[in-house]
Amino acid sequence: MASGRLQGIFTPNLVPHDANGNINEAELRRYVDWLIDRGVHGLYPNGSTGEFTRFTVEERRRIVAIIADQTAGRVPILAGAAEANVKETIAACEYYHSLGVRAVAIVAPFYYKLGPDSVLQYFRDIGRNTPIDVTLYNIPMFASPIDVPTVQRLSEECEKIVAIKDSSGDIPHMIRMMQAVRPNRPDFAFMTGWDAALMPMLLIGCDGGTNASSGVVPELTRKLYDLTLSGQLDEARRIQYDLVTLFDTMIYQAEFPNGFRAAVELRGFHMGTGRLPQSENQQSDLHLLSRTLQCMLASHGFTDEPVGGCPVGDASSVDTAEVTRIVQTVVAELKRRGIA
Amino acid sequence: MASGRLQGIFTPNLVPHDANGNINEAELRRYVDWLIDRGVHGLYPNGSTGEFTRFTVEERRRIVAIIADQTAGRVPILAGAAEANVKETIAACEYYHSLGVRAVAIVAPFYYKLGPDSVLQYFRDIGRNTPIDVTLYNIPMFASPIDVPTVQRLSEECEKIVAIKDSSGDIPHMIRMMQAVRPNRPDFAFMTGWDAALMPMLLIGCDGGTNASSGVVPELTRKLYDLTLSGQLDEARRIQYDLVTLFDTMIYQAEFPNGFRAAVELRGFHMGTGRLPQSENQQSDLHLLSRTLQCMLASHGFTDEPVGGCPVGDASSVDTAEVTRIVQTVVAELKRRGIA
Amino acid sequence: MASGRLQGIFTPNLVPHDANGNINEAELRRYVDWLIDRGVHGLYPNGSTGEFTRFTVEERRRIVAIIADQTAGRVPILAGAAEANVKETIAACEYYHSLGVRAVAIVAPFYYKLGPDSVLQYFRDIGRNTPIDVTLYNIPMFASPIDVPTVQRLSEECEKIVAIKDSSGDIPHMIRMMQAVRPNRPDFAFMTGWDAALMPMLLIGCDGGTNASSGVVPELTRKLYDLTLSGQLDEARRIQYDLVTLFDTMIYQAEFPNGFRAAVELRGFHMGTGRLPQSENQQSDLHLLSRTLQCMLASHGFTDEPVGGCPVGDASSVDTAEVTRIVQTVVAELKRRGIA
Amino acid sequence: MASGRLQGIFTPNLVPHDANGNINEAELRRYVDWLIDRGVHGLYPNGSTGEFTRFTVEERRRIVAIIADQTAGRVPILAGAAEANVKETIAACEYYHSLGVRAVAIVAPFYYKLGPDSVLQYFRDIGRNTPIDVTLYNIPMFASPIDVPTVQRLSEECEKIVAIKDSSGDIPHMIRMMQAVRPNRPDFAFMTGWDAALMPMLLIGCDGGTNASSGVVPELTRKLYDLTLSGQLDEARRIQYDLVTLFDTMIYQAEFPNGFRAAVELRGFHMGTGRLPQSENQQSDLHLLSRTLQCMLASHGFTDEPVGGCPVGDASSVDTAEVTRIVQTVVAELKRRGIA
Repeated sequence: MASGRLQGIFTPNLVPHDANGNINEAELRRYVDWLIDRGVHGLYPNGSTGEFTRFTVEERRRIVAIIADQTAGRVPILAGAAEANVKETIAACEYYHSLGVRAVAIVAPFYYKLGPDSVLQYFRDIGRNTPIDVTLYNIPMFASPIDVPTVQRLSEECEKIVAIKDSSGDIPHMIRMMQAVRPNRPDFAFMTGWDAALMPMLLIGCDGGTNASSGVVPELTRKLYDLTLSGQLDEARRIQYDLVTLFDTMIYQAEFPNGFRAAVELRGFHMGTGRLPQSENQQSDLHLLSRTLQCMLASHGFTDEPVGGCPVGDASSVDTAEVTRIVQTVVAELKRRGIA
Repeated sequence: MASGRLQGIFTPNLVPHDANGNINEAELRRYVDWLIDRGVHGLYPNGSTGEFTRFTVEERRRIVAIIADQTAGRVPILAGAAEANVKETIAACEYYHSLGVRAVAIVAPFYYKLGPDSVLQYFRDIGRNTPIDVTLYNIPMFASPIDVPTVQRLSEECEKIVAIKDSSGDIPHMIRMMQAVRPNRPDFAFMTGWDAALMPMLLIGCDGGTNASSGVVPELTRKLYDLTLSGQLDEARRIQYDLVTLFDTMIYQAEFPNGFRAAVELRGFHMGTGRLPQSENQQSDLHLLSRTLQCMLASHGFTDEPVGGCPVGDASSVDTAEVTRIVQTVVAELKRRGIA
Repeated sequence: MASGRLQGIFTPNLVPHDANGNINEAELRRYVDWLIDRGVHGLYPNGSTGEFTRFTVEERRRIVAIIADQTAGRVPILAGAAEANVKETIAACEYYHSLGVRAVAIVAPFYYKLGPDSVLQYFRDIGRNTPIDVTLYNIPMFASPIDVPTVQRLSEECEKIVAIKDSSGDIPHMIRMMQAVRPNRPDFAFMTGWDAALMPMLLIGCDGGTNASSGVVPELTRKLYDLTLSGQLDEARRIQYDLVTLFDTMIYQAEFPNGFRAAVELRGFHMGTGRLPQSENQQSDLHLLSRTLQCMLASHGFTDEPVGGCPVGDASSVDTAEVTRIVQTVVAELKRRGIA
Repeated sequence: MASGRLQGIFTPNLVPHDANGNINEAELRRYVDWLIDRGVHGLYPNGSTGEFTRFTVEERRRIVAIIADQTAGRVPILAGAAEANVKETIAACEYYHSLGVRAVAIVAPFYYKLGPDSVLQYFRDIGRNTPIDVTLYNIPMFASPIDVPTVQRLSEECEKIVAIKDSSGDIPHMIRMMQAVRPNRPDFAFMTGWDAALMPMLLIGCDGGTNASSGVVPELTRKLYDLTLSGQLDEARRIQYDLVTLFDTMIYQAEFPNGFRAAVELRGFHMGTGRLPQSENQQSDLHLLSRTLQCMLASHGFTDEPVGGCPVGDASSVDTAEVTRIVQTVVAELKRRGIA
């Protein structure tokens, strides 16, 4: 499995739970098949969308084992492998290597916000000791940032480090990374994790995306990818616009990733009780959100309309106006929390 | 002049000074001709690049009067018109209207950071009383942000408000604005002020840009615009990459807009002493920066190489590595100041 | 007037307007007398509370002239003197010097967020050319920050720079400044502009405050100052707590400084129409806020209760709970805007 | 142990390692005795200073077990108990309860930045199921913020929640919390985690502090506490100033908590290799820092001067000037990372 540059759409896997909040293995296997059937190029368990911090060490390993077993080599797997420290992370790399996954993705240390020297040394220690290819995972809203000189140094020093997944959504930053790395490492892959900028990121040179919305509407994300690469930009732009509306709704109207979980439920999967406790108010907000999402998904033909129907006329444009107002409020709140 | 949607590249005018720091009218007129000859679609005095806050009320008026006179209708002019309060701003609108400029651009109130209601009411009061078309100017790094619902409301309520210039560089934000406004106001124009994202901004639907680098390399900015619109994306991407390097160097290695002033000096204009006092250290840093910029401009054939020559091999790629490291440091510093 | 270290409570003057939004000179004179009678140690026109950016150059000069004339030497005046650039600012210094004010206060350049070198050079150029003592004004929420090494350098190089007004509310920062400056400049004064930390700021060594609430409840601010300096800490703490509630209500529940303007109206002054246009919603919010403020002021005996009365029991504690919730929401919003 | 309001100085325990990076039990026991002998009122393992995120679940439990055993009831213990989710956290609470510790401290969820509703529900679920008293731990630079209304609600709903440790250093915020909670829960304790504001925090009403510098100079932190409470403010202020310098040096000149680890090493403990890998440059920076710290500690008589001596004259004042400059740079960098 370990050859060729990472490219295409890798789906950050959500984890279905049973009624007790434990991993629902049967549903997870069914979800894996469904995603592969709908054309995603790869799977990505234990990412932020996969709520890796809310599972135990043992559960994180089990999630990857189930997905690797079910995938059976049909698509490559990128497994999140960050643990409490370098030693534990390398142990996870070894285990995921033994499962035959394509590569691991490792987020920079979080909680403490580290400076560039520490981030560099952390990945250097991992890069020198990993048996498996490593994707750097830059998500400055949640973890210590991995800056351009650090990516450049790591790409030069460690051939086992083969890619970066960047969730900042910052296009000039992505360009600077590609300029700094590609001359020496043409095999190094650049993946964007920010769905609302997928089309322009591909157009300025990214190799693909790890996009949470591909777990909800894999057909649409894949289509956007194909249209963009084949230069059908007018149609791609329309899909990118729709994806912004859907993505905004899922990411800004509930605690992440609950909006995504609600949408996958609408696609026919039992996601069960999440790991993050939610108040009664939050639960009823999520119920309302689910109805909005159902109208959006129905307008693309992915679900039926909810009982009682959707706003008359073009459902998606009607939603847009309202969603816009709500999103602004929530973006403000997220900015407060240092996220958006 | 007052018809048709704003589009294309509008150059935010720098103002040449004489040795006493006063406006150098002759050089400003020469610069205007030079820009128009090199293909920019419009001129934009009294923007942030034009250091409008560092001039007196009378000077701001004089700058527009000189430029309007020299332009003589060859290209449309967008004149920055923000003054101390609504009453003073409307007086400026009336004056610029009398000069025959195409539209004014008005930044949201700054110093105090206002909430959406106040920003809305501010532009509403202006929109109802202006004799001339108004472009909203959103630059959240410097002034109160103009959020999407505010733009939408203003576009619905005030037909005199015809465009927004957005310098945030945030692509999903631009998409949300276009989704919210265009269904009701297809004539409303969306201009990006962030040079490092010009190509992707055009590709996702912007009408043009007010880009400071078009005051330095108008040939290149215009070419990027034309290539992008005609779908020659591979070549456009190369120019966008080069522009990122040049723009980063000008914006992050000196107090804004001194890097741009230094570069225009290299294009043959006497920019004189700036309004912002600079220490001896800063002056010698600027001298070094000028040499770097000269090599970059020389690699495009816009200037000769400096005495002593440039780094051997591909000048621009050699610079890239070093620039990258410096830029990261400065981006960090600017983030500290709430800018980048 | 130009001798002795600045100390005590300096009131940042609000400016009453007439129905047309022009300066109401008679009311301003009456307000000045009222403040001096209630014991403030000095007056401070053209600060942020005085909305200096919303007046024209001529109006700013007239405000200081009126206040200087009315004060007639009874208390020292600190006049805000920041203008568009160094040259204009020095001209303002000269004018205010001719009026006999004690010192000027100059905010660091705003709009553009300057780095330490530029801030240093800016104040250096002013410090070398000013005929009047200068107070640095650090308000990082609105203007370029003045960092500790900059204050230290300026205090060493320019004897005309005699004080700093710091509105950050950051106690360790204030301690660092005092440690860096006092060994060489024991005459240098440190004034806090953050009312919610006045008592602890005085206890860790500040010389006084420029506190907007002293324009509303000068009796209370003065009493807090006296109690703290005389070591009556239990009573001082109670007043500081009350002041936090009142200050939070005025600063966080309306666009600054409209909450303060509403409260001064309750003390019997006609503040007239503000310079910042307010929507109908904002006006009715301000009406509600005014009622809350009236209950707070009544609980201290400064006004009558509003018609209909105030919440039963201890008015201030009842308000506290509600105010707390509202304040949190608004603090969040202000954080979004980079203010709090 | 479970009675009486938490008060005084609780030391956030650093963990000594052996050469392999494992817990050095013997040295940890010796360090516990040393701290208790020097007068700290309590111990606080598994806090941010204790690098709880860099240990495994099993190691976190073992650290508390060792400290509880060694303390043997001499002082109360506050044990950090945050784990991957509510279920795991409650399991930790139960275990620490079985060890006889006084209370647990639980940081709000991190990585994801949660909104107030989720933070409330998270602590509510814990508060209803914990067998042991809980201290909320608010550290917005690292984890989701716990806002005032949330603290108020939790204090009203859950009697098992008995205190908050707040590391924001924000004095008005602390006042607001005390105003919101104390009327209904006079037993609720307020502890500050920001050493640079310890004296003013105590003066405005805090019950104590969990201060990392008490692990380095327990004599000084304890003395500052005693002097402040007994109203000897001039001497307290001098110690607070010294503590700011020492604290700044330890927190801003190395990745947290490496400056504190270096300082404890100077007090005679073998801290071993830290969990965070450090580059050669960082190691040599730390060596230089250690020398600076040794001069500071020597000036208080806590250590000998380093070989070669310290700067002539008053060592601490000489250091102050230099430290000030360095600190500013580093504060800027930390602000960039969202920390300071």
